[in-house]
Amino acid sequence: MGFEFFQVMTVDDALARWREALVEHVPLTPTERRDLAAARGLALGQPVLAGDDVPGFDRSTMDGYAVAAADTYGASEGQPAYFTVAGEVAMGAAAAATAGAGSAVRIATGGMMPSGADAVVMVEYCEDLATGEIAVSRAVSPGENVIRRGDDLRAGRPVLPAGHRLRPQDLGLLAAAGVTSVLVHRRPRVAIVATGDEIVPPGQAPEPGQVRDANSVALAGMVAAAGGEPVPAGIVGDDPAAMSRAFAAAAEGSDLLLVSGGSSVGHRDYVGPAIAAMGQPGVLAHGLALRPGKPTLLAVAESLPIIGLPGHPASALVVFWLFGRHALDHLLGVAGDQGLRPAVRATLSHNLPSAPGREEYWRVALRPRPDGGGWLGEPVFGASGLLHTLVAGDGLVRVPRGSEGLPAGAEVDVFLFGGVR
Amino acid sequence: MGFEFFQVMTVDDALARWREALVEHVPLTPTERRDLAAARGLALGQPVLAGDDVPGFDRSTMDGYAVAAADTYGASEGQPAYFTVAGEVAMGAAAAATAGAGSAVRIATGGMMPSGADAVVMVEYCEDLATGEIAVSRAVSPGENVIRRGDDLRAGRPVLPAGHRLRPQDLGLLAAAGVTSVLVHRRPRVAIVATGDEIVPPGQAPEPGQVRDANSVALAGMVAAAGGEPVPAGIVGDDPAAMSRAFAAAAEGSDLLLVSGGSSVGHRDYVGPAIAAMGQPGVLAHGLALRPGKPTLLAVAESLPIIGLPGHPASALVVFWLFGRHALDHLLGVAGDQGLRPAVRATLSHNLPSAPGREEYWRVALRPRPDGGGWLGEPVFGASGLLHTLVAGDGLVRVPRGSEGLPAGAEVDVFLFGGVR
Repeated sequence: MGFEFFQVMTVDDALARWREALVEHVPLTPTERRDLAAARGLALGQPVLAGDDVPGFDRSTMDGYAVAAADTYGASEGQPAYFTVAGEVAMGAAAAATAGAGSAVRIATGGMMPSGADAVVMVEYCEDLATGEIAVSRAVSPGENVIRRGDDLRAGRPVLPAGHRLRPQDLGLLAAAGVTSVLVHRRPRVAIVATGDEIVPPGQAPEPGQVRDANSVALAGMVAAAGGEPVPAGIVGDDPAAMSRAFAAAAEGSDLLLVSGGSSVGHRDYVGPAIAAMGQPGVLAHGLALRPGKPTLLAVAESLPIIGLPGHPASALVVFWLFGRHALDHLLGVAGDQGLRPAVRATLSHNLPSAPGREEYWRVALRPRPDGGGWLGEPVFGASGLLHTLVAGDGLVRVPRGSEGLPAGAEVDVFLFGGVR
Repeated sequence: MGFEFFQVMTVDDALARWREALVEHVPLTPTERRDLAAARGLALGQPVLAGDDVPGFDRSTMDGYAVAAADTYGASEGQPAYFTVAGEVAMGAAAAATAGAGSAVRIATGGMMPSGADAVVMVEYCEDLATGEIAVSRAVSPGENVIRRGDDLRAGRPVLPAGHRLRPQDLGLLAAAGVTSVLVHRRPRVAIVATGDEIVPPGQAPEPGQVRDANSVALAGMVAAAGGEPVPAGIVGDDPAAMSRAFAAAAEGSDLLLVSGGSSVGHRDYVGPAIAAMGQPGVLAHGLALRPGKPTLLAVAESLPIIGLPGHPASALVVFWLFGRHALDHLLGVAGDQGLRPAVRATLSHNLPSAPGREEYWRVALRPRPDGGGWLGEPVFGASGLLHTLVAGDGLVRVPRGSEGLPAGAEVDVFLFGGVR
């Protein structure tokens, strides 16, 4: 079946191929209309235009007095400017009183500017003379402490473009524009299949030689965190026909297929051929210059992206973190994926070795530095087949392919790929 | 009413008071049993112990041949050691064949070690002589390429402690231990009230002087992202009695109360007194050396934590990010909150000014550096009352209280406080 050769590809090359194939062969998920509150994390399927100006009127940004700025010229503590208080702006209503020509109108933050006023003097600089007059000890410029009508949004102009992933602040802006529901790409359905004769469900007591399926629930968590809808699709043994049936069933209605286990080139590996047989363009990469994660398989079959993940849990999660999120971002319709990866800065406590020619990810636990300044990153050494090393770690440190390792004391970025524990 | 004085407190002092008061006065949310898949992001209400050893048997971590390591001593390419192949380990079952005394047993990654074997020689170093024998060109040490029974978990020993927040990898470890449901603290219910005579719901067309409520939906998104269950509790006008009724109603059944708007010391501010009247210990801080966010109010009333957030959206979100998450982490029962805040490292494109004596947060947009190395952080200047500056930004840069600002070219951490756009 042509899987004897394990041609190792760099992570960068594999990522480039993967992203190209996604754009070329894989459609975005269909759009659906959702209420704002249910749209967080999803990307807009079409641009949203503002129906009216926001704010709809000139607003004060301070508590104070609305004035004609020209009336305050030259005002100082020694030589205040005097104003007649012509009234007060009621919140949520147009002002009845008029400012200008020596008149000021009392106004609170967010109040609508009265006619004649083009600036607000902060209350701190206004002395109430209790005679219906105030003394202003500071000059203001036109527009000072005022947000103008349309400063935030102009009627008919775009609020947010198609492909924008909605964060809480974006939802706020949409609400301000009077938008209460949006068209977004629906969450991608991600089928997860575990393979291997030795794998049993977590609820089952393992016989000698059997282990419980840890990858399916861990991957489901990663999928949900990345905005997908995980669809656990069970366990299939090391049997070519059963695998083909299981993969075809899992593919049905799914937007992404994750297959964990069995993607090495061991003599029992039927996963590669089964995926290769699913359709064109087929396997894009099989075997990466990556540790953990060497046996990774990337494929697209008839518009379905497929990732074959190593059976070792640490490897599976690193590979999902590297490749799965790109697939989800693409399916979700996120425009111009910037690849932003927030991390915690830390100082390495120990040397991290590196084998030449491959990219490596080390599990690292974070502790406050004894000197109080920031974080210390302590490598958690252990086989990638062990789960507890993954759990003891807070995140991953990347050792690039060209590097000869990282020395103790180096400043590194620690990627909290599973969230904060 | 005692709110004439606006005693400004540092953010660090306010945080210390806030966290102390949470620990002293606010109980964790009750625990409930949840399936693993529904427990992501929640913290364990009790320690979980391993029911059995994981793995339950010695496992190979490589494809190859299980041998007695002693039989390979001195083996090299020039002088291979010869073995009789005694059989093969079937995946998911105990091996029938025995290794040792010159016999090897074929084994795949994850296979159960046969009796007599204490190491695995990788297949790359074994030449199949097609005579029922193999030539091994490399010596192995005892334990090499083997995970021992119980290496990951020992029966009766803790898998994870109480207070551990469950990440995908933690769910994997629990599944491996045969745990299918866990006792976790339920999501805190967070009531959100918007105040102000000028505020109307997003679905309503504003009259002159009115603006739509942007904060409630934005805060709901922040709450959900931080693991809480947002409960929008409507809008209340600037009327002391109505506020007291609205806050009491919102408090009912809630674990945290957020009140946006009206917490400055303007003459229409009834929020402070209404919160102060809700119970002991009462107001902890009102007015912070923080920009944006000066009018922040922190209180605890009869075990209910309350945050009064400024009405300006940018201020409200910064204040929630600084104080709301600590409250949620406490309610969720997250042990030993480390305050880890992942960020993207960037180079500042412009100077960031700073007023002495206060902590400042600037909105910053990230762009790839023209030289290709990392990110450039471009400040987005604009009033904190404007939403579009918040939306144009990717995150926040902190200018500490003692600082005189940050110069262009400085390396900074950009906190993507609302997620990746």
